[in-house]
Amino acid sequence: MEKLSVWAARQAEAIGKQATLQGWVRTRRDSKGGFSFIELNDGSCLANIQIVADAQLPNYEAEIKHLSAGCSITVHGEVKPSGGKEQATELLASEVIVHGLADPDDYPLQKKRHTLEKLREWAHLRPRTNTMGAVMRVRNRICRSIHDFFQEEGFLYVHTPIITASDCEGAGEMFRVSTIDPANPPKTADGKVDYAQDFFGKPAFLTVSGQLEGEIYATALGKIYTFGPTFRAENSNTSRHLAEFWMVEPEAAFFDLYDDMALAERFLKRIVNDVLADCQEDMAFFQERIDNTIMAALETVRDRDFLRLSYTEAVEILEKSGEKFEYPVKWGSDLQAEHERYLTEKKFNAPVILYDYPRGIKAFYMRVNDDGKTVRAMDVLVPRVGEIIGGSQREERLDVLIERMKEQDLNPDDYWWYLDLRRFGTVPHAGFGLGLERIVQFVTGMANIRDVIPFPRTPGSAEF
Amino acid sequence: MEKLSVWAARQAEAIGKQATLQGWVRTRRDSKGGFSFIELNDGSCLANIQIVADAQLPNYEAEIKHLSAGCSITVHGEVKPSGGKEQATELLASEVIVHGLADPDDYPLQKKRHTLEKLREWAHLRPRTNTMGAVMRVRNRICRSIHDFFQEEGFLYVHTPIITASDCEGAGEMFRVSTIDPANPPKTADGKVDYAQDFFGKPAFLTVSGQLEGEIYATALGKIYTFGPTFRAENSNTSRHLAEFWMVEPEAAFFDLYDDMALAERFLKRIVNDVLADCQEDMAFFQERIDNTIMAALETVRDRDFLRLSYTEAVEILEKSGEKFEYPVKWGSDLQAEHERYLTEKKFNAPVILYDYPRGIKAFYMRVNDDGKTVRAMDVLVPRVGEIIGGSQREERLDVLIERMKEQDLNPDDYWWYLDLRRFGTVPHAGFGLGLERIVQFVTGMANIRDVIPFPRTPGSAEF
Repeated sequence: MEKLSVWAARQAEAIGKQATLQGWVRTRRDSKGGFSFIELNDGSCLANIQIVADAQLPNYEAEIKHLSAGCSITVHGEVKPSGGKEQATELLASEVIVHGLADPDDYPLQKKRHTLEKLREWAHLRPRTNTMGAVMRVRNRICRSIHDFFQEEGFLYVHTPIITASDCEGAGEMFRVSTIDPANPPKTADGKVDYAQDFFGKPAFLTVSGQLEGEIYATALGKIYTFGPTFRAENSNTSRHLAEFWMVEPEAAFFDLYDDMALAERFLKRIVNDVLADCQEDMAFFQERIDNTIMAALETVRDRDFLRLSYTEAVEILEKSGEKFEYPVKWGSDLQAEHERYLTEKKFNAPVILYDYPRGIKAFYMRVNDDGKTVRAMDVLVPRVGEIIGGSQREERLDVLIERMKEQDLNPDDYWWYLDLRRFGTVPHAGFGLGLERIVQFVTGMANIRDVIPFPRTPGSAEF
Repeated sequence: MEKLSVWAARQAEAIGKQATLQGWVRTRRDSKGGFSFIELNDGSCLANIQIVADAQLPNYEAEIKHLSAGCSITVHGEVKPSGGKEQATELLASEVIVHGLADPDDYPLQKKRHTLEKLREWAHLRPRTNTMGAVMRVRNRICRSIHDFFQEEGFLYVHTPIITASDCEGAGEMFRVSTIDPANPPKTADGKVDYAQDFFGKPAFLTVSGQLEGEIYATALGKIYTFGPTFRAENSNTSRHLAEFWMVEPEAAFFDLYDDMALAERFLKRIVNDVLADCQEDMAFFQERIDNTIMAALETVRDRDFLRLSYTEAVEILEKSGEKFEYPVKWGSDLQAEHERYLTEKKFNAPVILYDYPRGIKAFYMRVNDDGKTVRAMDVLVPRVGEIIGGSQREERLDVLIERMKEQDLNPDDYWWYLDLRRFGTVPHAGFGLGLERIVQFVTGMANIRDVIPFPRTPGSAEF
């Protein structure tokens, strides 16, 4: 018999097929007419398929009547048209093989709904819930779109390092990576920890961004992107922070800031288009159960041109808005989430790309404009979440870059290889970063970032 | 003018186009006829395009005649048919804009060839060489095939954790991840390091494999794969070991070992097919310059059915082979590379999948066969490198699994969540692992694994 996924068996074209389905029981109810109805799920889609099991089946009394949520079964049978309104098909079982039971007295995932907080403690079981299943299918679709988009645009996937002993990391707090035993570290003659005896011969850390290394490959091979884990050792217990998260960072030689903004717009539209086209069932679930504003926000990204607005223009608009903001707006200060959301939601109801930020609030590697006051940074703001992408054209002029490092109390010697990219065949180039979990939150409406990653790492928590 | 990649401009269809090309100079030579010929590369392909720059160009004397290896330029001009044998086209420049010079006295990548060892010290410049460019394009193509293959087979991409405080890791030496200062660690009352005050509240490490966590998602959503970095803190300074490398690990519910072997065969064939179809120029370079046996090995993978052979049969063949092996062959011992290569190269000249290994030499999670002596493990062997994939059907029986843990001196309590997968709705399932760098080595013929990853991490080395 042909193995079918639940998704495939739910399609009308499957009617009449002899098929094998395999998955986990969600519910079972017994009719008085001598049948049991089993809702079966296999992760291929949100919906279950109804299995009709006749009391005449040889293991009906011994096994089938004891099936409960979480039990695993293989069912052979024929796909039939269903009388129900919610599904086109059902499976009339000719054989039900039970692989594993799930004792209702012990199995945590009973019919009653659990809070998302509770489910985090059961990270090994929560993918069996509707919500986490839907999150993971959408997350998968987004990852696929990310690769497809960049590959089709001619970008090479490059793996920048996870562990780094480079002296030019250090933005943000970092995790140390070591094989030294902190109970008994080797010491130098003057009593300090002797990192020369550590695995890498010097202090090493987990990366906070692949950008600088990405620039190495962009200024050799043209267009590249990274997509890998990045880390922050910040003690932030919020719904928006993780100690370990996945980041996408494209970088392209001969791109200026306008090319960069256009790339970011095409990229976000592509992700949203793909999810809306391919994850309709899961998205309907999020819209109905999680947040009924998400579809409107996604359609805005899909359908509206992204506005371009300089930081200076944005500050003027905010100053004239008459809104009462918690944080005052002042040229030279960073914008707060409330300001960003006012612009993208209330003022324009469209995605907005802000660019040309004051040099004082942005990183040393962003290209200084001719006005001397602003740099070629850009942030993409979307309704409901505010900033979702941050990027810039990079400073390609050796002298200006060194000046900017000194301005920010960085030692150019630590950046010798980054400066070499400007010493030898320097080119205009640009890139941006997108946090995977942020876009999954935006698309699904999930309020807590811990619920959009399989195994969240946060202060005090790295189980599983 | 239309921006064209060097690859696009080299196609005959580009002839007659007004185009803009951007990239880096490989060489320049000046003819007596009042022209300079510039070989331009932009990373889009191995080959350069020839730029013909007329001495009449306004910056000819001041700039163009000073161009050297590594300089970056933008060229506007017309694509013309080329008189040369090696290319169909060339670009007649109407304008040459110089972005950055590369002083020949300082720029390390001069015309003379550098050893791969030397290039590792210049990890920020080596992607500008022919060899590393070719490696990275092939590596990218393999990564794309990996995602395409699993997505098309209905597998969900799942990110298993990089940092883990789970007690059931610990195969192999691990890197500690910590925010504790080893110079001054917090101590408990009895003088031990107080990991309760560390970031995660207990000791945490870098993952050595996503398999166990992958099983969580497979036994909920059916078919999944991981593709992420993994780590080994082993002090191995060899051409086959890295401290940080990328691994692909599919896991599928309701798969037995035969399904797993078939999946691995389809997977390897897909990668090899895609590379042979899409990377012809780079592959010709590897065949000619790196190792002239690679194409034959790749064609074997593409064209031959993979043989299936039990470990027991393999041992019999080896014992009867009459070969003088360095290590003796004996049922119950692991096979060595020399044995594997004899089978796949000399004996069969085909990829070989060995399966059903002695339980004593394999991991606790592999399913015990009815003979009680062997487990459902499999290794895929290919010519030239030997083992390239290792996998197994997993033990889904709770009692047998606990017995196997005890047999290997593991504490079942540490594996509470892994055992829960067997307590609640257990299913037959299987998976395997492929090291990305190993397959890149196999495909490109590069002898040292440090030359197939952008930034190799090895004992004493985590620069950049």
